[in-house]
Amino acid sequence: MTSERLSKQLEFIVELDLLKGVGRQSYVLGGARKENTAEHSWHVAVMALLLVEYARERVDPCRVVKMLLLHDVVEIDAGDTFLYDKAGNASKAAREGEAADRIFGLLPDDSAVELRALWEDFEAAETADARFAAAIDRFLPLFHNCLSNGMSWAEHGIRRAQVEQHIRPAIERGAKGLWERAEVMLDEAVAKGILKP
Amino acid sequence: MTSERLSKQLEFIVELDLLKGVGRQSYVLGGARKENTAEHSWHVAVMALLLVEYARERVDPCRVVKMLLLHDVVEIDAGDTFLYDKAGNASKAAREGEAADRIFGLLPDDSAVELRALWEDFEAAETADARFAAAIDRFLPLFHNCLSNGMSWAEHGIRRAQVEQHIRPAIERGAKGLWERAEVMLDEAVAKGILKP
Repeated sequence: MTSERLSKQLEFIVELDLLKGVGRQSYVLGGARKENTAEHSWHVAVMALLLVEYARERVDPCRVVKMLLLHDVVEIDAGDTFLYDKAGNASKAAREGEAADRIFGLLPDDSAVELRALWEDFEAAETADARFAAAIDRFLPLFHNCLSNGMSWAEHGIRRAQVEQHIRPAIERGAKGLWERAEVMLDEAVAKGILKP
Repeated sequence: MTSERLSKQLEFIVELDLLKGVGRQSYVLGGARKENTAEHSWHVAVMALLLVEYARERVDPCRVVKMLLLHDVVEIDAGDTFLYDKAGNASKAAREGEAADRIFGLLPDDSAVELRALWEDFEAAETADARFAAAIDRFLPLFHNCLSNGMSWAEHGIRRAQVEQHIRPAIERGAKGLWERAEVMLDEAVAKGILKP
């Protein structure tokens, strides 16, 4: 461990701070303000730890948590892309790939390669770990919307069929029993008038 | 996995959201605002993952990360206690113990016992995992202060000797090479006039 190595690691840690300034569409519960991506990354990582028994396949909880802690780091450059934003999602992969080059590139080479691979695994969702991580990452904003009067859905005119189309496949692919709970919550949201049928 | 079990787990996840509203004394880098405990928990968990090669003893990185993700959950009830606040630190253990009873008590019994034990381990700092976690948890705010013009030090009239007294033992006990870097940073902070000698 050289001094130069530690300097690179600390430079990356400083860079991470910027994620606290990246805004998301989800509100903190109670709806006082929108949350930022650093808070979300914490919340979703803890959630995965707590709900690992619902993973559809055998997963490595440590790898899932690491993945979720870092999955949105690219938003420092690329910003948060709302799930229902067609244009934004069309350019997302290119924007985030460039961001990953720059941000992970701050690290010493061995860490850069490891964390970049972990992020690519999350994006590709072709391993059990990534599929479970994606399921939790989809479930949490739905849960947030149900518990903060559907404010983010209302702002973007989102309907129940869109939620189902964008969220159900990832939740069902990665987790057991969570989509069933999500459906109950969506039914209640429609009944309460906070989600359009 | 019963429906009641999932309900308890989700209730805990909802409760966690409140940590996004717990203010700390540290500023986000650049100094635009103070950070909250959820953001801090994310930042410190990622930092531990990145710097695990500096652990003084052999540690389980997964356990360290889990510990850091949850180490401040008690602040939902007990608030953040500033490291240099004597009165606050005198009552901290009692306030946080009650908070742990209530908050971890929301979970199904097996998880409540596991996470409570993890939190107690962090507080006691008697295992290698907890000592490394504490070292990182002490290093990050020092680093933040150095990079945000010592704003939090200035607000509370903190001197270099106090920083050394409160931070050095935990960093040296848990990590190799980080206190040496911290000392360089503190020297620079004093030279720049952002920390009183």
